[in-house]
Amino acid sequence: MTFPVVGMVGGGQLARMSHEAGIPLGIGFRLLSDTPQDSAALVVRDVVVGDYRDLDTLRAFARGCDVITFDHEHVPTDHLRALEADGVPVRPGPDALVHAQDKGVMRARLDSMGVPCPRHRIVRDPADVAAFAAEVARADGLSSGRDAGSPGGRDAGGPGAGSGFPVPVVLKTVRGGYDGKGVWVVRSAAEAADPFKAGVPVLAEEKVGFARELAACVVRSPHGQAVAYPVVESIQVGGVCDTVIAPAPGLPAHEAVQAQELALRIADELGVVGHLAVELFETPDGRVLVNELAMRPHNSGHWTQDGAVTSQFANHLRAVLDLPLGDPRPRARWTVMANVLGGDYPDMYSAYLHCMARDPQLKIHMYGKDVKPGRKVGHVNTYGDDLADVRERAAHAAGYLRGTIPE
Amino acid sequence: MTFPVVGMVGGGQLARMSHEAGIPLGIGFRLLSDTPQDSAALVVRDVVVGDYRDLDTLRAFARGCDVITFDHEHVPTDHLRALEADGVPVRPGPDALVHAQDKGVMRARLDSMGVPCPRHRIVRDPADVAAFAAEVARADGLSSGRDAGSPGGRDAGGPGAGSGFPVPVVLKTVRGGYDGKGVWVVRSAAEAADPFKAGVPVLAEEKVGFARELAACVVRSPHGQAVAYPVVESIQVGGVCDTVIAPAPGLPAHEAVQAQELALRIADELGVVGHLAVELFETPDGRVLVNELAMRPHNSGHWTQDGAVTSQFANHLRAVLDLPLGDPRPRARWTVMANVLGGDYPDMYSAYLHCMARDPQLKIHMYGKDVKPGRKVGHVNTYGDDLADVRERAAHAAGYLRGTIPE
Repeated sequence: MTFPVVGMVGGGQLARMSHEAGIPLGIGFRLLSDTPQDSAALVVRDVVVGDYRDLDTLRAFARGCDVITFDHEHVPTDHLRALEADGVPVRPGPDALVHAQDKGVMRARLDSMGVPCPRHRIVRDPADVAAFAAEVARADGLSSGRDAGSPGGRDAGGPGAGSGFPVPVVLKTVRGGYDGKGVWVVRSAAEAADPFKAGVPVLAEEKVGFARELAACVVRSPHGQAVAYPVVESIQVGGVCDTVIAPAPGLPAHEAVQAQELALRIADELGVVGHLAVELFETPDGRVLVNELAMRPHNSGHWTQDGAVTSQFANHLRAVLDLPLGDPRPRARWTVMANVLGGDYPDMYSAYLHCMARDPQLKIHMYGKDVKPGRKVGHVNTYGDDLADVRERAAHAAGYLRGTIPE
Repeated sequence: MTFPVVGMVGGGQLARMSHEAGIPLGIGFRLLSDTPQDSAALVVRDVVVGDYRDLDTLRAFARGCDVITFDHEHVPTDHLRALEADGVPVRPGPDALVHAQDKGVMRARLDSMGVPCPRHRIVRDPADVAAFAAEVARADGLSSGRDAGSPGGRDAGGPGAGSGFPVPVVLKTVRGGYDGKGVWVVRSAAEAADPFKAGVPVLAEEKVGFARELAACVVRSPHGQAVAYPVVESIQVGGVCDTVIAPAPGLPAHEAVQAQELALRIADELGVVGHLAVELFETPDGRVLVNELAMRPHNSGHWTQDGAVTSQFANHLRAVLDLPLGDPRPRARWTVMANVLGGDYPDMYSAYLHCMARDPQLKIHMYGKDVKPGRKVGHVNTYGDDLADVRERAAHAAGYLRGTIPE
């Protein structure tokens, strides 16, 4: 048998679902997991428990693999370069992945490509943040001395922010953030102090007055083949993805194509291999700005497991193996993904009875994680012709599993 | 977490695909496998290597499981009764499963239910087979002294069978056969000697002059819920399933419903829990006769992985866990499954390039098995609106992977 072994670094749910997608391909799947109890480690045969921050551990892991890919972006870039120097195929490679690891590098690169982004600047301290806020306000024609208003749908500071910035500012540590962690919205110099405490460089961005969030997901192979999934709408609650609707309702076809082309162009110019999620802000006047990049399977693509001909996980594996990519087209008119977050009661299994009996078409995807309030422990997918019905079924199941909907 | 552990006995591809289907459910999956290299053992975390014929091994395995189910029918019935006596839920239970384990028991039970079957009798020796052949011929109005003719589409003995039976007879060992093994078509007393050599009771059946083979697959829960998949056509080559078409082309709706009702009735009366495949002969005059029963996921249901809302594997797990069953309806007009058999060259992975590039919608399911000529090592699924196209795509991919189609 000449079937290759894919090594995935990180034992989270993305690795779990990648293994699931790899089983039909007949490939080997080797996991580097922090613990034997991580989500993926519970279901994968070939698990190495170790610390991805340790180069020797990575090297030993890589010796059993034909290609290395990732469940997360946290492997130090220099370690990846060392693996590449050892001759290990790393996909996506460090020169691409750094743009998903470091938001400062990402912004600089997108600027150089002329890709529309929120206004931004690396800042050194709260005074620097204040200066950035004043500059944004000035450019928008707001006097820098008064409270932030709400022009163009902008979410402004609350009342009594008289000593604050003229406009709110988003601060992000350039590395290590995810799901709202490492991200702050600040409205005064006092509020701006926290982000600097970790000693990580901080990126300031304007708080975009967006109409909604979109995601354009594409997959690219080493030999340059690429496929684009339908552009989706992503609805966040508390900085965490709550619902994804595929395709994004009411998105004009030319805007959808523009977003797909943008994502394909980023994948190509950055040399991405595998799945790339481009998180976008759609502004009220119909422009899109790039919010974040993720170079791995992504929450905004979970709908593809049940809603597309080829899932993001299967296509990510095919890409890192340089196999021809699968058809990314949808199988249903509408597919909705709703994340299942941990709630107050830990027994989600007993909730299956209600959810499965109520909706025999419901697709449940649980991650094997212990329930903690607010933690992503699974998701559900629903699909059909009637968007309102499809959304209700997903929201009901996710809410019932979490425990926020009693019946 | 209260998620249960399903224990599956047998490490073949059915267990492999059951694990794949169990991952999204968040359940535990424990495998009893003959070797660490069995198809399922390659991809499952929790593997016990041991001999299912040994009761102590089964008992130790069962201690880590909330319910026991099966990849094959070969566990001795008495061992299953012992596990049940220990308080282990065994699904399907031995009283149901024995009908899939022992063809003599199955025929006797179906007779008592009035289910149409091929004429049959337990036979003791070749003379007994000759008597059975004469009796079948007499009932059909054939003189028992002459060669078998071909009335009603019956496949008859070859020329020069003057010393043979008036009609061919199918002989089956009552236990242990599969995929054409343990099955003989004999046309003379001399040919009828072999099946008796194993010392296993032998069942004689008329060789039915069928128009085609169908399969009606249903899933039943302990609490009595049941779902029926569309009736499929199963095309055999050399006694091995080659192609399955879902739904069976041209099958009148009332015949399909009758076949589904028959399968549901068998599942109910036998107390089946889990997936039941009822293999059927469709006669030229539109009757159906029961050929075989299988109480586990089955080759005739592999199309459901990509062609139905809920796969047979997911529904089998839901049934043995007594969870509400998933929707069995098809997602496409036509779905075709083609088995991939081992051919002359062992490297199927390199064939992926051609197959995936030619057909981006192709769904490949490989089992991680070493290639041996004629061995089932995987299958492919295709679906779409145009049956001829869907069949061609499946046949091409299966043939290319096997090596019988060069381009």
